[in-house]
Amino acid sequence: MRNFKLTIEYDGTGYRGWQRQAQGPTIQGEIEKALRTMTRAPVALIGSGRTDAGVHALGQVANFRCGTRLSAEIFQRGLNSLLPPDIVIRRCEAVDGQFHARFDAQNKTYRYRILNHATPAAIGRQYAWHVRQTLDREGMSRAATYLQGTHDFSAFEASGSPRAHSVRCVLRAKVTTVEPGDLVVEIQADGFLRCMVRNIVGTLVTVGLGRMSPEAVRRVLASRDRSQAGATAPPQGLFLVRVQY
Amino acid sequence: MRNFKLTIEYDGTGYRGWQRQAQGPTIQGEIEKALRTMTRAPVALIGSGRTDAGVHALGQVANFRCGTRLSAEIFQRGLNSLLPPDIVIRRCEAVDGQFHARFDAQNKTYRYRILNHATPAAIGRQYAWHVRQTLDREGMSRAATYLQGTHDFSAFEASGSPRAHSVRCVLRAKVTTVEPGDLVVEIQADGFLRCMVRNIVGTLVTVGLGRMSPEAVRRVLASRDRSQAGATAPPQGLFLVRVQY
Repeated sequence: MRNFKLTIEYDGTGYRGWQRQAQGPTIQGEIEKALRTMTRAPVALIGSGRTDAGVHALGQVANFRCGTRLSAEIFQRGLNSLLPPDIVIRRCEAVDGQFHARFDAQNKTYRYRILNHATPAAIGRQYAWHVRQTLDREGMSRAATYLQGTHDFSAFEASGSPRAHSVRCVLRAKVTTVEPGDLVVEIQADGFLRCMVRNIVGTLVTVGLGRMSPEAVRRVLASRDRSQAGATAPPQGLFLVRVQY
Repeated sequence: MRNFKLTIEYDGTGYRGWQRQAQGPTIQGEIEKALRTMTRAPVALIGSGRTDAGVHALGQVANFRCGTRLSAEIFQRGLNSLLPPDIVIRRCEAVDGQFHARFDAQNKTYRYRILNHATPAAIGRQYAWHVRQTLDREGMSRAATYLQGTHDFSAFEASGSPRAHSVRCVLRAKVTTVEPGDLVVEIQADGFLRCMVRNIVGTLVTVGLGRMSPEAVRRVLASRDRSQAGATAPPQGLFLVRVQY
């Protein structure tokens, strides 16, 4: 059995998220279907983690084991010709048999894009959250710094999530401006709870709108109470950028 | 009768171009429908010019005349709430009764985006042309300079176009790199022939691939023969950026 690592870019707009399911198309499902066509056998794809419906990726990572003579290059080309244009294999590498995309992930980086203009955008509206009211970037930046470090992030976890514990280490949480009116929230952590980034972004926007002080984010975090945090930001602004091993 | 000027952003992916037609949705058709809903009367929208099926705009300009008490601001808000999310009115201004979006246009700027990577992109694939082979940017830049100035652009005009003459003045033709592997061709001219930008881009890519020398573009131009130029670049990389009055 050989082991292959895939680096995957996808536009999540038309998908019910990463994970294979009976109803509706998923990223994992599409890639497994293409792998099955290439290898003429069922192949299980192991992702670094799930992404929700409508969330995008620039660098999702997955691996699969399979007895094959096909080279990594042939897999990349073959998959890209079989897959729909909204899923692209950016890289395919033969890796050590022990490599496991989920268990070996050291940390991940997510990026969330907010368009902060009076009018919405037509171009790229699939890749950002449009917020009409002017946001206080300074306040959002300050609030983001309180999230850095090791904390129990229960307040930012989707309710009903079955987790052993909710402590995660956020290595970096930063609000930057790419172009005027174009905000990017970037969060790097050793792991993420369900909807954690979108709940953090929803809370930062609440701060940006002046409905919560930057310092209140510390209290939200300490409360471990989901109802204290802001609403969940919509999925289309979110990108899984990088998984580090 | 009052006269209103609209600045319009649109994602052309789902449309059969700007111009109203019997079959299939068009940008002009959608906006006229929304104007009719608002004013309860047929309103004719005059665009600065057509864009082809699948071509986008960041700053298309149009005007309409209408006997109404509605303010420019109300028109903007009303249209944006009636229009589908891939068409956005970025600005609406009450203008002089004489203003005509087509006849008064001084010059226009188009931008064409080329993704020059070994693998295609999933994110933003609707907004660029993917060219796999590495392009010679230097050569493309030099070729572009030969297009600047006043010339007969027949060689870059879609065949069968009914035009009085094919002389246009290109104020600026430039190839720039935004990010590595992300090329942008920007062309500003006092007017454009049918498919002119896409035919120019197709020719510049032929140069970039080494299949034509940069200097040969001068001969193509002088030939006034469409068959001498490169193939027409696909529509999804093209944006009408700005119309100047």
